[in-house]
Amino acid sequence: MNRASSSEFELIARYLSRPAAPERSDVVVGNGDDCAVLMPSPGHQLAISVDTSVVDVHFPQDAPPAAIGHRALAVALSDLAAMGAKARWCCMALTLPAADAEWLAAFAEGFRELADRSGCELIGGDVTRGPLTIGVTVHGELPAGTALRRSGAREGDLIAVTGYPGRAAAGLERWQRGEQDSDHPLLEAYLRPEPRLAAGEALRGLASSAIDVSDGLLADLGHVLAASGVGARIDVEALPLATPLRAILELDDVRERVLNGGDDYELLVTLSAADLAEAQRRLAPLHLPLTPIGRVVAGEGIEGVAPRYLAHRGWDHFPEIVS
Amino acid sequence: MNRASSSEFELIARYLSRPAAPERSDVVVGNGDDCAVLMPSPGHQLAISVDTSVVDVHFPQDAPPAAIGHRALAVALSDLAAMGAKARWCCMALTLPAADAEWLAAFAEGFRELADRSGCELIGGDVTRGPLTIGVTVHGELPAGTALRRSGAREGDLIAVTGYPGRAAAGLERWQRGEQDSDHPLLEAYLRPEPRLAAGEALRGLASSAIDVSDGLLADLGHVLAASGVGARIDVEALPLATPLRAILELDDVRERVLNGGDDYELLVTLSAADLAEAQRRLAPLHLPLTPIGRVVAGEGIEGVAPRYLAHRGWDHFPEIVS
Repeated sequence: MNRASSSEFELIARYLSRPAAPERSDVVVGNGDDCAVLMPSPGHQLAISVDTSVVDVHFPQDAPPAAIGHRALAVALSDLAAMGAKARWCCMALTLPAADAEWLAAFAEGFRELADRSGCELIGGDVTRGPLTIGVTVHGELPAGTALRRSGAREGDLIAVTGYPGRAAAGLERWQRGEQDSDHPLLEAYLRPEPRLAAGEALRGLASSAIDVSDGLLADLGHVLAASGVGARIDVEALPLATPLRAILELDDVRERVLNGGDDYELLVTLSAADLAEAQRRLAPLHLPLTPIGRVVAGEGIEGVAPRYLAHRGWDHFPEIVS
Repeated sequence: MNRASSSEFELIARYLSRPAAPERSDVVVGNGDDCAVLMPSPGHQLAISVDTSVVDVHFPQDAPPAAIGHRALAVALSDLAAMGAKARWCCMALTLPAADAEWLAAFAEGFRELADRSGCELIGGDVTRGPLTIGVTVHGELPAGTALRRSGAREGDLIAVTGYPGRAAAGLERWQRGEQDSDHPLLEAYLRPEPRLAAGEALRGLASSAIDVSDGLLADLGHVLAASGVGARIDVEALPLATPLRAILELDDVRERVLNGGDDYELLVTLSAADLAEAQRRLAPLHLPLTPIGRVVAGEGIEGVAPRYLAHRGWDHFPEIVS
C-alpha cells in the first residue's frame, strides 16, 4: 500500500480544475466539495455514458497529448450524440504514470477545447497513479421521451450515415506505418474525431434508430439490427467516399475501410424515406452530408456486401455494459 | 495497438449487466444502448462524484474480491452521503488484468449487494484490460438548495462525528501485519466501510457543513475549516472510542487512530449546539451515535490536539478535483 505524495499531482488539479463558467447557472456546486451539484432542466431526461481510453489499447502512447485529451472526451460525447442528447456535464477519472507538466498542459487543452465547444462542463474527477488511462463520464439531457434508441429500426426504413467514415481507420494505418504527420486529414480523423452532437439533436424526432460508428459501420449496424429484430440490405455503390481515401486507395479498398473501419464516430441512423430530405436539410447548416446506403429489411443479418469487403472487420471491442 | 478479443470479457458483462429492477421507473433506458437514460426527480438537484480505486494504492491486491467490489462503491457513495444526497444511479469503469470467473462473481456480488441496499442502480460502464482499477461515478439527488456544503461551518458551531472512526486504520494495520481474518471488526471496518447515506439525508437542514472522513478526521476537518474560513478547538477527551480499539491499544494510541486514521467514511459535521439533540434523535434509528468533539472558533487551524496525537497523519491522498 503506497500512495504518492500529493505534491507531484497538484499541477494536475490545477490544469483540470477551474471554477464553473459564470454563465452556467446549472452548476450549483462545482469544484472543491464532496460532490458537484447540478440543476437538471425541467421536463428533460438524463443520458449518461462512460468510456475508458487506455494507452496502447485505445490510442497510441506517442499520440499528441492534445489529441489524447480531445479523443478521450470525443468518444464519450459520441454516445450522447447517438441518443440525440445535448451535452451538459462531464467527469474525468485520470490515471497517470507521472506528472509531466508540458504533457498535461497540452492534454488538458485538448480536452478543454472540445468540452467548451460542446457546452460540456467538467464538474469533477480524480487523479490516481498508474498506466495512462482516461475514464470519462458524460451527462447529457434530452426532452423526455425523445431518446434515439438502437431498437427503433423498422422494415422499409432507409439506412443513412453522416459524413465520410473510413478515414480514421486509414489514418490509424498511416500512424502505425510511421507516417505521423498528425495534421494529415486522415490522421486528423483518427486523432481528433468530431462527436456529432448537433447532428444527433437535429435528428431527434426524425430518425427511427441511431448508433455511433465506433466498431465499424457493419459491426455497429449489426447492433441496431439485433436490437430492432430486423435485417438490412446495403448498397455498396452508394457508400460515401472521402476524397483523401480515394486519393490513396483502390475503390474496393476504400469501400472496405468505409464498411469496417471504426473510430470515425459518425452517426448511423435509420429513418423513413419520406423524412430523408428533411433530415438532410437539418444537417446542411452543419456542412454534414447524410448519405442513404441501404434499407432495413425483414429477417436478420446484412445482405449486399460481397466477401471482398469483409477483409478487415472492425476491431472486436471489449463488450460494454453501455457502450 | 492491440485489443483483446471480446470473448474473455463477456463474462464480465454478464456479471455486471442486468435489466434495471422493474420497480425503477426512473431508469428509462438501462443496458444495451449508447447511453443510459434516466428520469430525474422534479425539484431536485443532482449530486455527482467519481472515485477511482487502484490496486495496491487504495486497496491490497489480496483483499477479498467481494470487499474490493463493496469498497469501490462505498467510497464513492460516501461523497453523496457527505452532501446529504440520496443515492440513485452509478456507472462502473472496470479495468482488469484478466477475467477470472470466480473472482469476478465475488467482486460483482460485493458491489451489487451494497448498490441494491443503497438504492443505487448500476446503469452503465465499460470494461478494459489493464491493472485492476475500479472507477465509480455515483449520482444522487437532493431537494434543490439543501446540499450540505464544506463551506457552512460558523463560529460557535459544534463539531461532531458519526460512529467510531479509527477502526479502519487499525484494521489496515492488522492486514499489513498479516493478520488477515477479514471478519475481525477492525478489518471489517477497513474492508467494508458503510457509507453514511441515511445519516447524511437525516442531517440535511440541521448540519451547517459536512464532509466524509476519508483522509483522516483532522485532515478532513482541515478541508472544512479552509472552505469555511474558520478554526476549530478539539476536545480530545470527548472523542468516541471504539471498544475493539480500546481492547488492543493504549488510550493515546486509540486517540491517534481516531484523529488521523482515514478510510472509515464516517461523517464529520458542524451544527448549532441547539440542534445536537434533534440530530442525535434522527440518527438513533440508524443505531449511529453522533458525538460532539469540539467547537468551531474564529481564526484558522486546529487547537487542542497535543503533538503526541499527530504521530501518524492520515494518508496524503492524491488531490481530487471533486474528492
